[in-house]
Amino acid sequence: MRSLWLNTFAKQSLCRLSTKRYSTNNEPKEPVVRTKSIPGPKSIELKKHLDSVQATGTIQFFADYEKSVGNYIHDVDGNILLDVYTQISSVPLGYNHPRLFKVFTNEQNLKTLINRPALGVFPGKEWPDKLHSVLMNIAPKGLNKITTMMCGSCSNENAYKSIFIWYQNKLRGNTPLTEQEKTSCMINIPPGAPKLSILSFKGAFHGRTLGALSTTHSKYIHKLDVPSFDWPIASFPQYKYPLEENVEHNKKEDEKCLAEVQDLIEQYSSKIPVAGIVVEPIQSEGGDNEASPEFFRSLQAICKKNGIALLIDEVQTGGGSTGKFWAHEHFNLESPPDVVTFSKKLQLGGYFHNDDFIPNEPYRIFNTWMGDPGKVLLLEEIVKVIQEDNLLANVNVAGKVLKNGLLSLEKEFPHILNSTRGRGTFLAVNCTNTKVRDQIIGALKLHGIQTGGCGEISIRFRPALVFKEYHANIVLDRFRKVLKAM
Amino acid sequence: MRSLWLNTFAKQSLCRLSTKRYSTNNEPKEPVVRTKSIPGPKSIELKKHLDSVQATGTIQFFADYEKSVGNYIHDVDGNILLDVYTQISSVPLGYNHPRLFKVFTNEQNLKTLINRPALGVFPGKEWPDKLHSVLMNIAPKGLNKITTMMCGSCSNENAYKSIFIWYQNKLRGNTPLTEQEKTSCMINIPPGAPKLSILSFKGAFHGRTLGALSTTHSKYIHKLDVPSFDWPIASFPQYKYPLEENVEHNKKEDEKCLAEVQDLIEQYSSKIPVAGIVVEPIQSEGGDNEASPEFFRSLQAICKKNGIALLIDEVQTGGGSTGKFWAHEHFNLESPPDVVTFSKKLQLGGYFHNDDFIPNEPYRIFNTWMGDPGKVLLLEEIVKVIQEDNLLANVNVAGKVLKNGLLSLEKEFPHILNSTRGRGTFLAVNCTNTKVRDQIIGALKLHGIQTGGCGEISIRFRPALVFKEYHANIVLDRFRKVLKAM
Repeated sequence: MRSLWLNTFAKQSLCRLSTKRYSTNNEPKEPVVRTKSIPGPKSIELKKHLDSVQATGTIQFFADYEKSVGNYIHDVDGNILLDVYTQISSVPLGYNHPRLFKVFTNEQNLKTLINRPALGVFPGKEWPDKLHSVLMNIAPKGLNKITTMMCGSCSNENAYKSIFIWYQNKLRGNTPLTEQEKTSCMINIPPGAPKLSILSFKGAFHGRTLGALSTTHSKYIHKLDVPSFDWPIASFPQYKYPLEENVEHNKKEDEKCLAEVQDLIEQYSSKIPVAGIVVEPIQSEGGDNEASPEFFRSLQAICKKNGIALLIDEVQTGGGSTGKFWAHEHFNLESPPDVVTFSKKLQLGGYFHNDDFIPNEPYRIFNTWMGDPGKVLLLEEIVKVIQEDNLLANVNVAGKVLKNGLLSLEKEFPHILNSTRGRGTFLAVNCTNTKVRDQIIGALKLHGIQTGGCGEISIRFRPALVFKEYHANIVLDRFRKVLKAM
Repeated sequence: MRSLWLNTFAKQSLCRLSTKRYSTNNEPKEPVVRTKSIPGPKSIELKKHLDSVQATGTIQFFADYEKSVGNYIHDVDGNILLDVYTQISSVPLGYNHPRLFKVFTNEQNLKTLINRPALGVFPGKEWPDKLHSVLMNIAPKGLNKITTMMCGSCSNENAYKSIFIWYQNKLRGNTPLTEQEKTSCMINIPPGAPKLSILSFKGAFHGRTLGALSTTHSKYIHKLDVPSFDWPIASFPQYKYPLEENVEHNKKEDEKCLAEVQDLIEQYSSKIPVAGIVVEPIQSEGGDNEASPEFFRSLQAICKKNGIALLIDEVQTGGGSTGKFWAHEHFNLESPPDVVTFSKKLQLGGYFHNDDFIPNEPYRIFNTWMGDPGKVLLLEEIVKVIQEDNLLANVNVAGKVLKNGLLSLEKEFPHILNSTRGRGTFLAVNCTNTKVRDQIIGALKLHGIQTGGCGEISIRFRPALVFKEYHANIVLDRFRKVLKAM
């Protein structure tokens, strides 16, 4: 099912020769900033126009997507920013990639786009082939089933449901449903709607719908005033960086957090048993918090020991920017995780899983659209380009340059920066405090570099997979100028 | 903000002359059934292929969307069905409408499609105009704000969140957030994550993610094994049809259910106060259960009296098939509902609301994509076609033919059919029992008519807005043949 190319990629990941194929010739040579502040006057004007129908407090500027190209985003005021944030980590090939441009010039693809089916009931004749050739082609090793959705939150919500159904089926064994189960679930009470939980981690982000939000703990503003399930929340390791100099501290963190996980499973076993654990390979919104491969292997062992499913949420980490297609491939887990969710760079949402997580009865995991075949067509082309242009190898090369550069800046400006970390181009660095972090992000933007914050004090780098060494050098050069001026 | 054309439509709704503009010349003259059973052999083959990667228990057949046209869906076995189910009510203009075909031949539109932004942070320069010209153009009267999402479940989930935030802000007044609120919400407990509820109705369907699912009560298979919030559930009126012959019974139903709503609000006030009520204008998945305009007006009065928000879920009813663009326009509410959610025929999800439901702080209602501008481009063209071709008038004309025909069949076959009901082409009829209903739906399919079930014993009709009188006559003719043969 899984093609050979991902493995081939892994082998080629340090081969610098392979990174030159993608042409970024149409890109500007460097960023251009034309306004004294961003948003500039035209963005501010558009913001007023939008403000009459929508909240606009989160808007940074209005982009010109007709002009944006490759790694560069153009705004309406003529500013051209090197984008290492890429729409919150969701643009795999940069802007206006010529190959994506061609997808819907194909009449068959255009018909797929405009005749959107209820995929669970009347899929198009191409659907089985597309799932095999596109989605199973990128399936995490050992997971042979795919359930498609539309966004990250829906993917996690439905993955949780699959886990709850699996867990209850284990308890139920081969006994038939009782009348009480059927009637009680209709009025939201046990045994039909059982008291079960998903264990999550402090600092985690898994989405914002009510189930997903019960496992999100990154910022209070995401959660305030919204009712929540009483589900257990364990501490996530608080590492010191660089990892190689803090082995002992970090190991103790692992042990402390793993013990807490086991404790919570036991505490909740009699009132709201834990059916699954959800975890990000790198806590992204929460501040690019890493945990070791050993941590994840032990977490999997705890899941197995307690009969609990392990869900790895790769919504932000999946798609190649850690240097492997799935970040959890870095962990050498003893066996595949039970469920892996995705979205963002993959254009549509969904989750990979094994047979155990397919409900016995139809309509249990279901909705009108069950994903979007138009997005799968885009993903198909994206995966081809990743393969043909060896973009995972490119990520590793460009990421090494960016990471080493950040480490140098950290040494040059130790009073401002610390804790450079990450894999591939999925990188972050900490600042002295939130105010300094926000100042730097603002100044970087006025120097032509679009980054984003995460956690309280981190700057995250989320370039597209077509981000190259010379882009990294531009970022580092501008970053140094910003730091020098502080 | 709201253009005149919706009102113009209403006036024209009985003008038969205006229904002739849309050309369905490319459609086949009538359905063609070539296989002895549906799914036919090619569909069965594809199902096996799909089954190796996905659950297929809900799949009826594989469609050929290249060949499907107008009201007719082609399957891979050469069957051509007159589709009055339209992908669970989500196809507004039929298949391969020439106008939708043109949307992405425009280069600017194509660029919007392939450069998908994080709309809440870096929207494209066209976004404010599109929201004004497309979405505010169809806004329910009195609602001046729009929040875009991607699907019905997400729309309801986020609408609930907006309601909870609004409710807590009312309680909080102008006092600042407490430290306790900020820290408690992070671990899922009050006061930051308050015990609040959304009141819903028995038989309702509002989606399948965990928050939305707590307000869904249509079938046990949707809810079994999934943890749920303890939120109040009121009875929905159980009408007898035809409405004009059962005025007294139905009025008593209204009164009983409204009293129950008020009782539940009081019961829950001390433990899990009701912040909002969610209701469908016609309970769709639950069996096309209607309630009177008086019921909805009284429900709104209860909301106002108790300081509770009224959310009308128009995910299935919105978009014109009841003969008005929004079904709740039939109710002559004293003031606009607080929130109206949509999805399906509108291609993307979202909700209309007033200023009160915009949170004071940024990032409270937020996600990566916040909708999909590519879908708005499709919606733009759909709305233009609805306007230019006077499709709401068409719906009223064709719906009248279909409804009168169903009423005749009901008289002809009283031992099989009863309770014809609905507005526009949004119609349903009841069968003696579930077995008979399922037999009829299967037999209709083999006679070339694709319908769907809802509730326990109902057949629902959800044709596209381009469904015409002569299509209605084909449906009725085949339906009669099926009933005669039973």
